[in-house]
Amino acid sequence: MQRYFIDHPLTVNDEFQMASDDSHHLVKVLRSSIGDEVEIVDSKRHVFLAKVVDIQTNTILTATKDITKAVELPIEVTIACGISKGDKNEQIIKRATELGAQHFLFFESRYSVAKWAKSKTARKLKRLGEVAKSAAEQAHRQMIPTVEIVEESQLLEMDFDDRLVAYEESAKQGEQSNFKKVISNLAPGDRLVAVFGPEGGFSKEEVDKFAQSGFTLAGLGPRILRAETAPMYVMATLSYQFELR
Amino acid sequence: MQRYFIDHPLTVNDEFQMASDDSHHLVKVLRSSIGDEVEIVDSKRHVFLAKVVDIQTNTILTATKDITKAVELPIEVTIACGISKGDKNEQIIKRATELGAQHFLFFESRYSVAKWAKSKTARKLKRLGEVAKSAAEQAHRQMIPTVEIVEESQLLEMDFDDRLVAYEESAKQGEQSNFKKVISNLAPGDRLVAVFGPEGGFSKEEVDKFAQSGFTLAGLGPRILRAETAPMYVMATLSYQFELR
Repeated sequence: MQRYFIDHPLTVNDEFQMASDDSHHLVKVLRSSIGDEVEIVDSKRHVFLAKVVDIQTNTILTATKDITKAVELPIEVTIACGISKGDKNEQIIKRATELGAQHFLFFESRYSVAKWAKSKTARKLKRLGEVAKSAAEQAHRQMIPTVEIVEESQLLEMDFDDRLVAYEESAKQGEQSNFKKVISNLAPGDRLVAVFGPEGGFSKEEVDKFAQSGFTLAGLGPRILRAETAPMYVMATLSYQFELR
Repeated sequence: MQRYFIDHPLTVNDEFQMASDDSHHLVKVLRSSIGDEVEIVDSKRHVFLAKVVDIQTNTILTATKDITKAVELPIEVTIACGISKGDKNEQIIKRATELGAQHFLFFESRYSVAKWAKSKTARKLKRLGEVAKSAAEQAHRQMIPTVEIVEESQLLEMDFDDRLVAYEESAKQGEQSNFKKVISNLAPGDRLVAVFGPEGGFSKEEVDKFAQSGFTLAGLGPRILRAETAPMYVMATLSYQFELR
């Protein structure tokens, strides 16, 4: 069933309006009509069945049943990526949103091939936010992941419980234990940041700065992973460790 | 360093010719010249440094040093996928090749939106094989994964040590332990097949047939994963379990 997010709390029998872009999607794209049902996630991550009761400028629905079932990863994961070119940033958001990431930070890295002009940043961010929203709806998430742009230097000072940098050179040098160490030290509720380079990887200086700031440098196996694959590796592992028994 | 595959064994000091498409890539795309070095993987999965000694119709190289380092996943994984539409099949091959898959099987599934006409199958397969080759070169694999098309019914009778079907309904019903059970029963050297539905998922009848043939139905966490994401989940988990300490 189609799922949408609203920005306020709901209770059963509440009548409420959808945002206009969601309303457009429901009525014009899915051709829904009065009486049809959708899933609505409220601002408290509760999920409701809701019935279309009126279609005006914005669609009006009534919440009919609380069907909340927890599907959020118990670790609050921030995926921080050096800006990549083409559709790679969108790919990362789509796949990692399916896999349960809660926040995305993009930063310009020394070897970023793509640079985002200041004038275009707002438009890029808006687009990436829309990608996260749509991926969250399709993956039946209970929240829309946030997307922000930061300076690489800010990243060093942000507050997290656990911090790792995926570093290919670690893997090449045969380092095989740091990632597992980080994962086994995590506890439900922890806020983890996992940092990934752009296509070109990180420079030695960048990696040294992360290490000096207390980030763990971790290899993700012996093969060379692309910028858009490495975040999936981390997310899948977290799901395996914390969601399967 | 650029990596190429050749179809025969090598020893240090051997002089050999590259295949013509690789030769074209090296000379015309990378603009290499005499004296340049590349990595060559031979038919026994040994990796050599090799130096360009002559550029004729096909480039001639000399193997200068055996630099073999084992990077293959200790589980021989076959990824079997219902045919998806668009570039999803290629995405699956690219990502799963990076993550160590050794074989790909594609089959027409009940809910496959894309159908491959018999007349186009050979061309599709050739293209997918090229994708696997190029992904294997870039991920610095020691082998090129195979790509084949099979009937879904053949899949039921093929010989593997361990067999699983990723099944979304398992996850929805709260099944959380089958995947971990399969993974913990694996031993290095095992041949595992992991079967995935197309975008539309499997029909109840298809899933029943897999179950009756001894496949384990396994959910991959509580969220809904896309056809191209589920294989990454399995591959990343295998790497985590068998390649990291």
